[in-house]
Amino acid sequence: MNEIKIFSPATVANVSCGFDVLGFCIDTIGDEMVIRKTKEKGIKITKIVGADLPFETEKNVASVSALALYNHAKPDCGFEIEIYKNIKPGSGIGSSSASAAGSVFAINELLGKPYNQTEITNFAMKGEAIASGCEHADNIAPALFGGFTLVKSTTPLKVLQLPTPKDLFVTIIHPQIEVKTSESRAILPKDIPLQNAITQWSNVGSLVHALHTEDYNLLSESLEDVVVEPYRSQLIPHFNSVKTEVIKAGALGAGISGSGPSIFALSKGKDTAEAVAEAMKNVYSKTEIEFNVYVSKINTQGMKVL
Amino acid sequence: MNEIKIFSPATVANVSCGFDVLGFCIDTIGDEMVIRKTKEKGIKITKIVGADLPFETEKNVASVSALALYNHAKPDCGFEIEIYKNIKPGSGIGSSSASAAGSVFAINELLGKPYNQTEITNFAMKGEAIASGCEHADNIAPALFGGFTLVKSTTPLKVLQLPTPKDLFVTIIHPQIEVKTSESRAILPKDIPLQNAITQWSNVGSLVHALHTEDYNLLSESLEDVVVEPYRSQLIPHFNSVKTEVIKAGALGAGISGSGPSIFALSKGKDTAEAVAEAMKNVYSKTEIEFNVYVSKINTQGMKVL
Repeated sequence: MNEIKIFSPATVANVSCGFDVLGFCIDTIGDEMVIRKTKEKGIKITKIVGADLPFETEKNVASVSALALYNHAKPDCGFEIEIYKNIKPGSGIGSSSASAAGSVFAINELLGKPYNQTEITNFAMKGEAIASGCEHADNIAPALFGGFTLVKSTTPLKVLQLPTPKDLFVTIIHPQIEVKTSESRAILPKDIPLQNAITQWSNVGSLVHALHTEDYNLLSESLEDVVVEPYRSQLIPHFNSVKTEVIKAGALGAGISGSGPSIFALSKGKDTAEAVAEAMKNVYSKTEIEFNVYVSKINTQGMKVL
Repeated sequence: MNEIKIFSPATVANVSCGFDVLGFCIDTIGDEMVIRKTKEKGIKITKIVGADLPFETEKNVASVSALALYNHAKPDCGFEIEIYKNIKPGSGIGSSSASAAGSVFAINELLGKPYNQTEITNFAMKGEAIASGCEHADNIAPALFGGFTLVKSTTPLKVLQLPTPKDLFVTIIHPQIEVKTSESRAILPKDIPLQNAITQWSNVGSLVHALHTEDYNLLSESLEDVVVEPYRSQLIPHFNSVKTEVIKAGALGAGISGSGPSIFALSKGKDTAEAVAEAMKNVYSKTEIEFNVYVSKINTQGMKVL
């Protein structure tokens, strides 16, 4: 196999109470990438469609992560990468992670899978680092492992694959505004009340239990973030209205996707997820802000070879 | 049935990362209680063996909780309670909870089980409140539900029963020193670093996943408390030595039981749990402090009718 075409999925990180550790994978939004072996050694980006991103190997997350794997594997060939972006950079649904993870996944396939998922994740984190300033696996882990993931630690990297209830759907609204990563970080307090922390870890424990037992009611009760959302939601116009309306429409819960501005809501069943989409549209239609809305089953596979 | 004899188990609360929410039930340590119907109405403590505790109905946790149930059920009889204490008050393994939970469990049995476990837990919390100053279910929930429990919330009360890996044993050392509840509370900070909170809820999520998947390695990695133990362990002499030695002896992890002074360690298999007991004894034998050491399977049943 000299060439591979893949679907690299969008992802939701910072799932409610699981700030910095819990994410899941989306099925209907993702980039496509074509990676092919070349006689010429090295990593080269040859095509980028759909976004204004750098072609230089050391500046594009996809080639930086690819290079990390490449320098480790030292194969007897090179690789060229074509990127077809469907996930808008800055949307909060793992755009850079899809690029960073997609290239290493694809090259690993072309090389006959010398690396396991955790090793690939480590390489992908090198690419993510140039986009976000630090190596984290919040979006990379769900993109590569699929389903719900819990990043237990990053040094050493330990990713847990959590079970995904089979009727679980996500609805996402991406309001087309810019939320600066620096601002969404600066707004968080360094210290938090112990009582809030206890509520949060109680919710995290309950959420993991709910996923294992397919208990949608408990999942709903656990989708509560008393630590981060009260701060970051201030940066997303109409966040509270969206949250109120999607719950009315039957969603199990809602929260900020990544560091925003996208908002996600989880629902049991596609019909509810689509009613939730309508509720989201209704809120933002009354504003001047442009937006996209997506409905997706939770993607339990992660990357897909097309 | 006019009389019942029960075993009311000791319990471990504040299990490592799960401060204030996670507990489990012990099999080999517990009180015995005899409760019998009387023609005379009301609740009366008629016998207390093994501890110096009040006989007045409104001062003993067992009768206070019993009274909460009694006033709700309004039965056509009264009850007298005999308490045979084996769990030393102030040991940190749920002495007051065993009394508070035992009486309501037994009376509920004698009345033909009109109340479910959550309702009984609520009554028991009324008794616990006079011992600890606030209504909490940290020890009561595992005593009544058995196995590992996660108290998701207390108002309204929501207790989750987590699965218990079948080879899991606990070793407990009770150093016979007094740790004042007021002091163990005062030593905790009101605010904690967000980074520590994230580590903690990552561990809680991992621990719940480990219980569901019977993953002893992950359980071991998750038994880490970066929030409370660094403070409270200062109140327990030789805590760090005990922890170091039990890990060397093969324990999966160790921590403070409740608010101390007892220290618990979890192990896979009875042999390891007994080696851990020896390691604990070795540390404390070199000191002037008297101690008891117990080894127990995790009690998945909770209360037992004898």
